[in-house]
Amino acid sequence: MSSSFLRTRAWTTNAMLGAFDDAATLRHALAFESALALSAAEAGLLSLETAGAVAGACNGVDIDPAELADEAAFAGTLAIPLVTRLRLQLAGDPESVAGVHLGATSQDLIDTVMLLQAKDAADLINSDLKRIIRALSRLTREHTGTPAPGRTLLQYAVPIAFGLRTALWLAGIEDSRRKLKAACADGIELQFGGAVGTRSGLQGRGEKVAQALARELGLRAPVAPWHTRRGNVAAIAAALGIAAGALGKMARDISLLAQNAVGEAHEPLVEGRGGSSAMPHKRNPTGSQVALSAAVRAPGLVSTALAGMPQEFERGVGGWQAEAPVLAELFMLVGGSADAIATVAEGLEINRVAAERNLAAAEIDGDLGESRIIIEALLAEYGMED
Amino acid sequence: MSSSFLRTRAWTTNAMLGAFDDAATLRHALAFESALALSAAEAGLLSLETAGAVAGACNGVDIDPAELADEAAFAGTLAIPLVTRLRLQLAGDPESVAGVHLGATSQDLIDTVMLLQAKDAADLINSDLKRIIRALSRLTREHTGTPAPGRTLLQYAVPIAFGLRTALWLAGIEDSRRKLKAACADGIELQFGGAVGTRSGLQGRGEKVAQALARELGLRAPVAPWHTRRGNVAAIAAALGIAAGALGKMARDISLLAQNAVGEAHEPLVEGRGGSSAMPHKRNPTGSQVALSAAVRAPGLVSTALAGMPQEFERGVGGWQAEAPVLAELFMLVGGSADAIATVAEGLEINRVAAERNLAAAEIDGDLGESRIIIEALLAEYGMED
Amino acid sequence: MSSSFLRTRAWTTNAMLGAFDDAATLRHALAFESALALSAAEAGLLSLETAGAVAGACNGVDIDPAELADEAAFAGTLAIPLVTRLRLQLAGDPESVAGVHLGATSQDLIDTVMLLQAKDAADLINSDLKRIIRALSRLTREHTGTPAPGRTLLQYAVPIAFGLRTALWLAGIEDSRRKLKAACADGIELQFGGAVGTRSGLQGRGEKVAQALARELGLRAPVAPWHTRRGNVAAIAAALGIAAGALGKMARDISLLAQNAVGEAHEPLVEGRGGSSAMPHKRNPTGSQVALSAAVRAPGLVSTALAGMPQEFERGVGGWQAEAPVLAELFMLVGGSADAIATVAEGLEINRVAAERNLAAAEIDGDLGESRIIIEALLAEYGMED
Amino acid sequence: MSSSFLRTRAWTTNAMLGAFDDAATLRHALAFESALALSAAEAGLLSLETAGAVAGACNGVDIDPAELADEAAFAGTLAIPLVTRLRLQLAGDPESVAGVHLGATSQDLIDTVMLLQAKDAADLINSDLKRIIRALSRLTREHTGTPAPGRTLLQYAVPIAFGLRTALWLAGIEDSRRKLKAACADGIELQFGGAVGTRSGLQGRGEKVAQALARELGLRAPVAPWHTRRGNVAAIAAALGIAAGALGKMARDISLLAQNAVGEAHEPLVEGRGGSSAMPHKRNPTGSQVALSAAVRAPGLVSTALAGMPQEFERGVGGWQAEAPVLAELFMLVGGSADAIATVAEGLEINRVAAERNLAAAEIDGDLGESRIIIEALLAEYGMED
Repeated sequence: MSSSFLRTRAWTTNAMLGAFDDAATLRHALAFESALALSAAEAGLLSLETAGAVAGACNGVDIDPAELADEAAFAGTLAIPLVTRLRLQLAGDPESVAGVHLGATSQDLIDTVMLLQAKDAADLINSDLKRIIRALSRLTREHTGTPAPGRTLLQYAVPIAFGLRTALWLAGIEDSRRKLKAACADGIELQFGGAVGTRSGLQGRGEKVAQALARELGLRAPVAPWHTRRGNVAAIAAALGIAAGALGKMARDISLLAQNAVGEAHEPLVEGRGGSSAMPHKRNPTGSQVALSAAVRAPGLVSTALAGMPQEFERGVGGWQAEAPVLAELFMLVGGSADAIATVAEGLEINRVAAERNLAAAEIDGDLGESRIIIEALLAEYGMED
Repeated sequence: MSSSFLRTRAWTTNAMLGAFDDAATLRHALAFESALALSAAEAGLLSLETAGAVAGACNGVDIDPAELADEAAFAGTLAIPLVTRLRLQLAGDPESVAGVHLGATSQDLIDTVMLLQAKDAADLINSDLKRIIRALSRLTREHTGTPAPGRTLLQYAVPIAFGLRTALWLAGIEDSRRKLKAACADGIELQFGGAVGTRSGLQGRGEKVAQALARELGLRAPVAPWHTRRGNVAAIAAALGIAAGALGKMARDISLLAQNAVGEAHEPLVEGRGGSSAMPHKRNPTGSQVALSAAVRAPGLVSTALAGMPQEFERGVGGWQAEAPVLAELFMLVGGSADAIATVAEGLEINRVAAERNLAAAEIDGDLGESRIIIEALLAEYGMED
Repeated sequence: MSSSFLRTRAWTTNAMLGAFDDAATLRHALAFESALALSAAEAGLLSLETAGAVAGACNGVDIDPAELADEAAFAGTLAIPLVTRLRLQLAGDPESVAGVHLGATSQDLIDTVMLLQAKDAADLINSDLKRIIRALSRLTREHTGTPAPGRTLLQYAVPIAFGLRTALWLAGIEDSRRKLKAACADGIELQFGGAVGTRSGLQGRGEKVAQALARELGLRAPVAPWHTRRGNVAAIAAALGIAAGALGKMARDISLLAQNAVGEAHEPLVEGRGGSSAMPHKRNPTGSQVALSAAVRAPGLVSTALAGMPQEFERGVGGWQAEAPVLAELFMLVGGSADAIATVAEGLEINRVAAERNLAAAEIDGDLGESRIIIEALLAEYGMED
Repeated sequence: MSSSFLRTRAWTTNAMLGAFDDAATLRHALAFESALALSAAEAGLLSLETAGAVAGACNGVDIDPAELADEAAFAGTLAIPLVTRLRLQLAGDPESVAGVHLGATSQDLIDTVMLLQAKDAADLINSDLKRIIRALSRLTREHTGTPAPGRTLLQYAVPIAFGLRTALWLAGIEDSRRKLKAACADGIELQFGGAVGTRSGLQGRGEKVAQALARELGLRAPVAPWHTRRGNVAAIAAALGIAAGALGKMARDISLLAQNAVGEAHEPLVEGRGGSSAMPHKRNPTGSQVALSAAVRAPGLVSTALAGMPQEFERGVGGWQAEAPVLAELFMLVGGSADAIATVAEGLEINRVAAERNLAAAEIDGDLGESRIIIEALLAEYGMED
C-alpha cells in the first residue's frame, strides 16, 4: 500500500500521523454511524434490534481505505460509498438497511469525524505544551538572577536576567495553550443537521437524536447545526497558528543563542541528532528547525481556514471542502512543533559563562532592572510545578 | 497635503480612517508621553512641576505629520523625532528635557498607540455589529415560518424556513462579535517595559509607573511587558479575520439571493447606490461587495500577523514592524464591512413570493423540519432585542 | 502500513499521490546517489569500479520507508540515514563507502528529489490542462454565436456570446499553463553545491560533476547552487497558485450556471457521481467543488513558499524545510483540480434553451457586441485543435 | 485634510506614496477619460470637437478627492461620480455629455488606472533594484577572495568567499528584477471592454478604439478584455512577492552579520539613523528592518491577489474589488524595501578582519572550494557594471 512517511514524518510525529490516518478516519466514521443508529433507537425512531444490527455492521465491516477513497473521490463525498458498504453488509434486512445514516448528511459525518480527530490531536498537543511549560518553569526559576545581554534588533541593548527570556517564552506558549484549549472547548462539538440543517425526516425528534449522539461520541451538542457557520473551526485554526508562532518565537531565540559566536544556549546533545551529512562535527538546532518550519507554514493554513468561511447557503461548494485537510495539517504541524520543542525545553543547556562573557564584551552598563519582579509575576500567572 | 481617500475610502468608513489617521496617531502618542510624565511624578520619579511642564509641551507642540513621518522613516522609529520635538519645546529646562519619555522605549510608545487606536476602532465595529444583530433578530422573528428552498452545493435540496438562514447569519456574526470582544479585552493593554522589557532605569518603581500609566490612558496594565510576545495581538487579528468571514458569509448569500433568477432577497434600494456606469438599470449588491472584498483580503493579513510572531530576543527586527500596519488595515476592513452590512441588514428586503415560487419550481417535498426549534435556540443564544 | 488516502484522495489523483509517495521519493533519492557516483567517476574522482559498486548498492538496497522516515526525523535530515544504509550495504569496501554521497550535502539530495518529483507532477498537470484547452476550444467554436445573458456583480447586464465566456476560461487556463511551463523550465534544475554551496572537497572538479549529474538525472545544470536563493521555487509555487485560480474561475462560473434557477450549463452526468447521501435526486457540481476547494487552498500555500524565502546564510533553518511539503501539496492540489476540470470540460453540457430563456427574462437589449471578434482573437492566441 | 503618513511612511517612500495618492489617481483617471474621447473620435464615433470638449473638461475639472471618494463609496464605484462631474462640466452641450466615458465600464477605468500607477511604481522599483545590483556587483568583485565562515542552520560550516554571499544576494535580487520586469511587460496593459467585455455600443469599432486608447495612454493593447481573467495581475503580485523575499534574504543575512558577536558586515553609518530612543549607543540595522518587515507582509498580500481570482461571470463581486488596494500595497512595500536596501548596499561595510577572526575561531578547515568559479558564473549571468 502506498505510504507518504518521507514527505510528512519530517515535520510531525507518528502519534499525530496516527490521529489522522485512514485507520483513525474509519474508526471515527463507523463510530458515528453506529452511535447514530443507537441514538435513533433511543429517540424511538429505530427498534433496538435494528440499531443493534447497524452497530454490528459498523463493527464487522471490513473496508479497504484506498478503494473507499477512490469511490469517495468519484462520488464527491465519503458518506456515499461508506453507507453503501454498511447497507451491503445488512442486505436482506430492509429495516436495518433503511436505518443506516438515518437523518444524516455527508457533512454531518465528515465534520464530526474531523472534530473527533481534532480532539485526539488537541490532547496530544496539550500534553507536549505542558511538558514545555513545566521545563521552562524550572529553567526560569534557576535563572531568575542569571545576567545576560538583552538584545534588540539583534544588537546588544541592556542586561536582562536570562530567566526573563525563558519566562517570556513560557508566558507566550502557556497563553497559546490556554487559547487553544478554549477554542477547542468552544469548537469541538457534534455536527448533526441533515441535508440543510433542519434535522428534517426525524419526526421532530432530531434534537433528541443530536443530544444522544453527542453523548455517545463524547462530544458537546451544539446550539444548532453549523454547516456553513465556520467561525468555531476557524478559531481552532487560529489558535493553532498562535501556538505555532509562540513555539516559533522560542525556537528563533534558541537558534540564535546557539550560534557559535553567541553560545548562550544549546539544544540537548543527543547522539546521532542534529548532525550533517556533509559536516560530521556540526551540532544543529534540529528541534528549533522543526518549530521554525511549522511557524512558517501555519499562517498560510490559518488564512485558508478563514478564506473558506463565506460558504454558500446551507452547505457550500469549495470553501467547506478546503477546511478538513487544512485543519488536519495545522494540528499535525503544531503537534510536530510541540513535540520537538518539548524535547528541547527539557534538555536545554543554558551557558552562564557565555552569557557573562558576552555581557562583558557588550560593555553595556546597568543592572537587571525589574527582571525578578516581572519573572515572578509571569511565573505566578503562567508557571507550572514539575 | 497628500491624501489617499480614493485608494482607501472604497473599503472603509471615514470614522475608521479617522481612527488611524495622523491626527489620531499624534493625539495618542502625545497622550502617552504626557501620561508617562504624570505617572512618573506619581511614582516619585519626577517632580509635579516637571511632569506638568512635559504634559504642557505635549499639549502645546505643533507637529507636521509629513515632516515627522519623514524623520521617523530616517531614524527607523517614530519615537526619536517625536521626543526630539518635545525636548526642543522644553529647551532651557534640563529637568523637563530629561523627564520626557522617561524609562520608555520606542516600542512602548508605538504598541500603546496601536492599541489605543484599536480600542477606538473596536468600539466602532462593535456598534455596527450590534446594529446587524438587532436587524437580523427582527428579520429572523418575522421569517420563522417563511418557507424557502434550502440549497447545498448551490443546488436545490429540501425546504428551510427563511428565518433559519438569517438566524445562522446572526449566530455567525454575533459569535464573531463576542470573539472579537474577548480578544480585545485580553489584548488591548498597555505596553511599558523600556529598552529590553526590564523597566530598567526607574529605580525599581517601574511597576508603579506602569500601573499609573495604564490608568491614565484607560488601558489595562499587563502582567508583564510583551515586546516579543505577540499572541494577544495575533488573537485580535484572528478575531477580526473571523468577523470578516462571518460578514462575508452573509454577503455571499445575499449576493446569490439577489440574482435575477433567484430574487429571494435584495439589498435596500437607495437612490444613487448600486448603479453601474455602463448600465443605469442595474441594482448591484454594493454592500455585499464591500463585505466580500473584505473577506477576501482579511485572511492574508491575519496570516501576516501570525507570520510575524517568531521575533528575535527582547525586541525583534522585521516581524514586529510588520504588525501595526496590518492590524490597522484589518480593523479598517472589518469596519468597512460591518458598516456596509449594517446598512444592508437594516433594509434587507426578503421576498416571500419569490421564495415560494422557487420552492414550487424546485419540486422538493418536505416540511421545514425543526427549523422553528433551531431558530428559537439560536435567538435565545445569540439574538438581541431592538 | 499506515495510509492516508481518506484524507488526501478527495482532492488529488492517484497519479499525483504516486508522484510524491514514499516509493517515488526513494526512487529519486537513490537515483541521485547513484548518478552522483557515476558523475564523480566521469570527473575522475572515483574509479569506475567504485562508482559501479555505489550504483549497485543504490539498486539493491531494500528500505522500509517508515523506518527511514523515523530515523530522518531523529537526525534532522533524510540524507544521514539513507547514506548510512548505502554504506552498510557496501561495508567491507572502504573506497565505495567513502564514495557514497561524495561532495554532496543533505539539501543537494532533498532539493533535487523535490524537483524530480515536481517534473513528473508538472507533466501530469500539463496533460490535463491541455485536455481542458482542447475541450474549451471546441466548445468555444460551437458557441461563438450562442446568445446568453452577461452578468456583472451577479446581476443581468447585457448579452454576450456564450462562447466568449468559454473563451475567457480557456484564455485564463492556457495562459496559466504557459506561465507554469515557463516557471518549471526556469526552476526545475539540479541542486549540487556541497555543505555551503562552494562545491568544496571535489578537487576543483565540482562544476564537472554537476554537469554530469544534471545530465544523468535529466535536469538542467544551474548557473550556481541555490541553497538559500529560492526565487525559482517560489515562482513555480506562484504559477501553481495562478493555475488554481484560473481553474477556480471556470469552476465558480459552472457552479453558478448549474444553479437550478439558471441552468445554462451542467457538469457531465455520470452515473454515481455528484449525488448526495441525504438527497438522491441531486446533481452536484462535484468537479467544480474540487477545483473551488483547490482555489481556496492554494493561495495560503503560495504565501508560505514566499514567506520562507529570507533564509539564513548558506543554508537556513526553518524557511527551507517549510518548502518541499508546501510545493508537493500545491502540485497535488492543482493536479486534482486540473483532472477534475478536464472531466468537466470534456463533458460540459451547455443549455442554449436555458440561456435564451434567461436572456428573454432579463429583458436586456442589445446585440452580442464584438463577441465574435474577441472570441477569434482569443482562439488565435490561446486555442488548441483537437 | 486627513493624512496617514505616520501609518505608511515607515515602510515606503514618498515617491511610492506619490505614485498611488489621490493626485495620481485623479490624474490617471482623467487621462483615461480624455484619451477615450480622443480615441473614439479617431474611430469616427465622436466628432473632433466633441472629443476636444471632453478632453478640455478632463483638463479643467477641479475635484476634491475626499468628496469624490465619499460619493464613490456610496455609489459602489469611482466611475459614476467622476463621470457625473465631467458631465456637469459639459452641461449644455448634450453631445459632449454623451461623449463622456463612451463604451466604457467602471472597471475599464479602474483597472487601467491601477496599471498606470503600477507602471510608474514598477519604474521606481526597477531603478532601486538596479542600484542594488550595481553595488553588489562591485562588492562581489572586491570580495571574490575574502575568506569568511560559511554557516548552515546558523552554525559554522566550512569557509566561503564573502563575495559568494554577496553574489548570491545579487543573483536572487537581479533574478527577481527580471521576473518583475517580465510580469509587468505581460500584465501592464489597457483594460477596455465595456459592461460585459463585448465592447458593445461602439458600432463594431471597439477594437479600433482600444488600439487608439492604448496608444494614447502608453499601454499595450490586450488580446481581449480581461475583467475576470486576472492571471496577469496575480503574476505581477507574485513577482513583487518574490522581490520582497529576495530583498528580505539579503536583509536577514545583514541583520545577522551585524550582530555584535559576529560583526562581519554593517549597514552604512549615517548620523541620526538606526538609533534607539532608549539606548543612544546603538547602531540598528534599520534598512534591513524595513526589508524584513516587507518580506513578512508581502506573502499574505500575494495570497489575496490569488484568492480573488475565481471571480463571478463577466465582472465579479468582491474578488476584483480586493485586488487594487492589495496591488498598490505590494508595490509600496517592495518600493520601500528596494529603496532601503539600495542605501544599505551602496554603503555596506564588510569587515574582513572580523570575518577572518570568526573563521579562525570556527576552527573549520578547508579552502574556499569553487567560490571563485561560482562567483564568476553568477556575475556573468546577473552582474552589472557601475
